[in-house]
Amino acid sequence: MSRDSIDLNADLGEGFGRWTLTDDERLLTVVTSANVACGFHAGDAPTMRRVCELAAERGVTIGAQVSYRDLAGFGRRAMDVPAAELAAEVAYQIGALEVFARAAGSRVSYVKPHGALYNRVVRDGEQAAAVVEGVLLAGRALPVLGLPGSRLHEAAAAAGLPPVPEAFGDRAYRADGSLLPRGQEGAVVSDPGEVVERSVSMARTGTVTAHDGTVVPVGARSLCLHGDTPGAVELARRVRAGLEAAGIRVEAFA
Amino acid sequence: MSRDSIDLNADLGEGFGRWTLTDDERLLTVVTSANVACGFHAGDAPTMRRVCELAAERGVTIGAQVSYRDLAGFGRRAMDVPAAELAAEVAYQIGALEVFARAAGSRVSYVKPHGALYNRVVRDGEQAAAVVEGVLLAGRALPVLGLPGSRLHEAAAAAGLPPVPEAFGDRAYRADGSLLPRGQEGAVVSDPGEVVERSVSMARTGTVTAHDGTVVPVGARSLCLHGDTPGAVELARRVRAGLEAAGIRVEAFA
Amino acid sequence: MSRDSIDLNADLGEGFGRWTLTDDERLLTVVTSANVACGFHAGDAPTMRRVCELAAERGVTIGAQVSYRDLAGFGRRAMDVPAAELAAEVAYQIGALEVFARAAGSRVSYVKPHGALYNRVVRDGEQAAAVVEGVLLAGRALPVLGLPGSRLHEAAAAAGLPPVPEAFGDRAYRADGSLLPRGQEGAVVSDPGEVVERSVSMARTGTVTAHDGTVVPVGARSLCLHGDTPGAVELARRVRAGLEAAGIRVEAFA
Amino acid sequence: MSRDSIDLNADLGEGFGRWTLTDDERLLTVVTSANVACGFHAGDAPTMRRVCELAAERGVTIGAQVSYRDLAGFGRRAMDVPAAELAAEVAYQIGALEVFARAAGSRVSYVKPHGALYNRVVRDGEQAAAVVEGVLLAGRALPVLGLPGSRLHEAAAAAGLPPVPEAFGDRAYRADGSLLPRGQEGAVVSDPGEVVERSVSMARTGTVTAHDGTVVPVGARSLCLHGDTPGAVELARRVRAGLEAAGIRVEAFA
Repeated sequence: MSRDSIDLNADLGEGFGRWTLTDDERLLTVVTSANVACGFHAGDAPTMRRVCELAAERGVTIGAQVSYRDLAGFGRRAMDVPAAELAAEVAYQIGALEVFARAAGSRVSYVKPHGALYNRVVRDGEQAAAVVEGVLLAGRALPVLGLPGSRLHEAAAAAGLPPVPEAFGDRAYRADGSLLPRGQEGAVVSDPGEVVERSVSMARTGTVTAHDGTVVPVGARSLCLHGDTPGAVELARRVRAGLEAAGIRVEAFA
Repeated sequence: MSRDSIDLNADLGEGFGRWTLTDDERLLTVVTSANVACGFHAGDAPTMRRVCELAAERGVTIGAQVSYRDLAGFGRRAMDVPAAELAAEVAYQIGALEVFARAAGSRVSYVKPHGALYNRVVRDGEQAAAVVEGVLLAGRALPVLGLPGSRLHEAAAAAGLPPVPEAFGDRAYRADGSLLPRGQEGAVVSDPGEVVERSVSMARTGTVTAHDGTVVPVGARSLCLHGDTPGAVELARRVRAGLEAAGIRVEAFA
Repeated sequence: MSRDSIDLNADLGEGFGRWTLTDDERLLTVVTSANVACGFHAGDAPTMRRVCELAAERGVTIGAQVSYRDLAGFGRRAMDVPAAELAAEVAYQIGALEVFARAAGSRVSYVKPHGALYNRVVRDGEQAAAVVEGVLLAGRALPVLGLPGSRLHEAAAAAGLPPVPEAFGDRAYRADGSLLPRGQEGAVVSDPGEVVERSVSMARTGTVTAHDGTVVPVGARSLCLHGDTPGAVELARRVRAGLEAAGIRVEAFA
Repeated sequence: MSRDSIDLNADLGEGFGRWTLTDDERLLTVVTSANVACGFHAGDAPTMRRVCELAAERGVTIGAQVSYRDLAGFGRRAMDVPAAELAAEVAYQIGALEVFARAAGSRVSYVKPHGALYNRVVRDGEQAAAVVEGVLLAGRALPVLGLPGSRLHEAAAAAGLPPVPEAFGDRAYRADGSLLPRGQEGAVVSDPGEVVERSVSMARTGTVTAHDGTVVPVGARSLCLHGDTPGAVELARRVRAGLEAAGIRVEAFA
C-alpha cells in the first residue's frame, strides 16, 4: 500500500524531575504525533503539562506512551506484570495524561507502548490483551500505534481499537517484516542520507528492502523518529524535508 | 448552623501493592464519601480501580485524596514543593483516579488533600493556591473538602470551587476552632461512646465544645472517620448509627 | 543426609513506611535466621535498623534478603535486569543492611534472594551469576541461602560462596525435588499438624515425600517459615516445638 | 586562616538509570573530592559503582552525598523528615556507597548533605543532629563537609566528627558569611575569570569580599565546584589551574 501522506511520531517528555532527555521543543517543530511519557518510565507531571501545551500550540497530536513502572530501568526491562495490574496501570497513565492534554485544549488521541512493553506485546498475547483492556478502561476506543502483525495489533483490532502500523527508517528489517534485533550487526542504519532515503521509500512504496535483499511490505501509516540521540532533531528535519520533497504530505494519522 | 443531614468521609484504598491498610470493603458500607488515594502517598492502580468499583456499587461518592509524592513517608512529611509542580501533581492524581471512577460508572466528585499537605494548606497560601490550580487544571470546579477557615478553603472559594468544611468527632478542638495537635494530651478522643456523642452533637448543633469548655462553631457538612486503626470500622458504624438514631440523615454532600 | 540440628529462617522487616506485613518482634522469638528486606521490594531504613537491633538482641543471625527494585510488585514480578545492573543492585542492598547489622553489634551473615528473583535464579544462569557477583562485590564470601540444585547454588559454589539449601514444610514437592507451583492443587500444605510433621521429617531424614509418593532428598540445612499469613507466628512456634521435641537442635546455620 | 593547599569538591554520579547529568569522567580529572550521589536524590547502583572505580583509579577521595528521599525533586525540596527516619536514611546511603568504594579499593572518607538537606541543616538543629547520628550509625567518625558556622558543623564537632568548611567561588556572600540566596540579583557569579579570581583569593587569604564590600572570613578547606552546568568542566579546570599558578597545592582534605 503506497501512501500520499505519512505521520511522523517521536517519544517526547522523557525527562524526570531534574533530568531531561529529549529536545521536546525542537522535535515538536518536526513531528506530527507526540508519544508523551506518562510518569512510569519517565515524565513527571510538570513536564507532561508543558509538552501537552507545546504540542497543542503547534497542532501536534498527543498520544500516551504507556510503560511498565520502572524509572530506574527507563521501562526497558521486560516485567512479568499480571494482566489485571498491567491493564489498570495503562489506564492510570492515560488518565493522568488526558488531564494535561485537555487543559491544553487537546485530547489523548492514541496509545503507544514504550520500550520493553512495546517489544513484549509483539508476541505476548496476554500482556497485549492487558494493554488493550487498559485503553478500554480509560474510556475511549483509541488507536494503538505499534508494530504491524504484533499481538498488540491483533488484540486491538479484535476489541475495536484501530491498529496503526509504524515503521522505522533507521532500523534494518528481516524478510518476515520483523526488525533485526539491536546488537546484531547492521541493525541500526546510521547514515543520515540512507535513513532519509529509506523513510521516503517506505512512505511512497509501503515497502522496505530487508537486509537479505527481499522487498517486504511494511504498510506504515507512521514513521517513528528517535529523539534521544545526538543529531536527532537534525535527522528528523531531514527526513521530513525528504518526504515533502518527494511530494508526500506529512500529517498526523489521528 | 445545625443540619438535618451529614456526610461521612474516610480515607480508602491506602494500600500499595502487597500492603493494605484500610478495610475498604467494610468501610464502604458505612461512609457516604470515599477519599481514594491516588498513588502518591498510597494507592496503586489496581486498588484504585477496585475501590472505585466497590464505591460505585454502593452509591458512595468518590473523591480524590491528593498528596505529596512520598510513598516512604505516607505523605505525612511536609515538603516545599514549588507551586507549579504541586499544581501539576494534583491534576495528575485527579486525572488518574477519574479514569477508574468513570469506568465504574461514577465520577471524581470532590478533592481532599492528604496528610502533610492537608495540614500545610491550612496556613500556606501558596500551596493552597497550587492545590486549587491543580483542581482547575483537571477541568472541573470540584468541591474541596477541608478544614473550615483554612487558606485552602479561602483559595477554593475565590476560584469558584465550593469549600466543604469537615469536622472530627475523635479530635479535641481549641477555642479558635483549630485542632489540638496530635501528641498533646487529650488531642485524640479514644472513648468510642464519646466519639459518637461528639459526632452527633457536631452534626445537630454545628458546634463542638473545645477542650477549655468554649463552645465553638464547626459548621461541618462532613465528618471525617478514621479507617486505619483497630476497631475503626466498628466505631464508624456506631457513629453512623448514633447519627441516624438522632434523626440525622447520613448522605453524601456532593 | 539426616541432621541433628536445623536452622529456621523467615522473611522479616517486609513493611515500608506506614505499612507493615510481618510480625517481626514475635517471629524473632522463633527463627534462628532473619532474611531482612533491604529496601528494594520492602524495608525502609528505620525498619531495617529496628529489625537488626531486635535480631542482634535475640541472637538471631541476620541475612540480606535481596530483590529486584520493585516496591509496587513486592519483588514478585520477574524482570529482565541486565547482569551488571543486577550485580550492583545486590551489592547496594547488602551494603545498606550491613550498616544496621554492624550498628547492632552483628554482621550480615548470608544472602537470600527474594520472590521473583529467588525463582528466576533457580534456572537463569546469567542472573544467578549476577547475584553471586553482587555478593562478592559487597566484599565477603557470604553463604547463599536457596533451593538445592538451583543455578544460584551452582554459581555460588563455583565462586567459593557456601550454598545453603533450604526446604519448605508447607509446600508440596515433585519427584524431581522441585516445588509444585503455587496455584496447582495441593501446592500449599495448610494443615498445621501436617506442616509440623513434614518439617520434622525433613530435618530428621533429609527427605520429603513428593506428592506422587516418591521419597526425594532435600538435604536442607534450613527450613523456611512464612511470616506474612494469619497464624504464621503460631505455626512457626509449633514447628520449632516439634523439632525440639524430636531431639533436633534449632540453631542458625551461619 | 590562609592556606597553602586546598581541596576541590564536586557532586558526581548524579544521573539515574537512563539519565545523566554530570560529566563524571572529566570532572574526576579536576577535583580531589567526589561527592557521590547515593540513590536518594540521584545515583543508581551501577553509576555509583562506576564513579567509585573511576575516582579510585584517579586517587580522588570518595564522599557520600546524602539526601532526602526525593528522586522527583532531585532532593531540592525541604522535607520534614522525623529525626529517627533521617538518621537511618543517612546511614543507609553511606552503607550502600561504602560497598562500591571498598570494591574499588577505597573507602567513603567523608559525608556531605545534598540540596535541600544541605540548606536545612544550616539552621535546623534537629535535622543536623539526625545527619550526625546517621554518620555515627554508619560506624565511623567521618568528616562532614558543609557550610562553616552551620548547625550541622556544630553538631558534628560536638559528636567528634571533624567539620570541614567549604566555600563557593561562584556565589556571592553576605557580610555575615552566609550565601546570598539564589534568585537574588548577583547571587551567582557567572564570569569565569571572576570565579577563578575569587577561588584563588579564598584559598590564599581565607576570606571573601561580600557583596557589600565587607571582607569576611570563610576559612574553607575545600572549594565546591558545580558540575551540572554547560562549561562546568572547563571552568573547574581554570579554577584548578589558577590555584596551582598561585602556588596553592590542590589536594584532598581527607
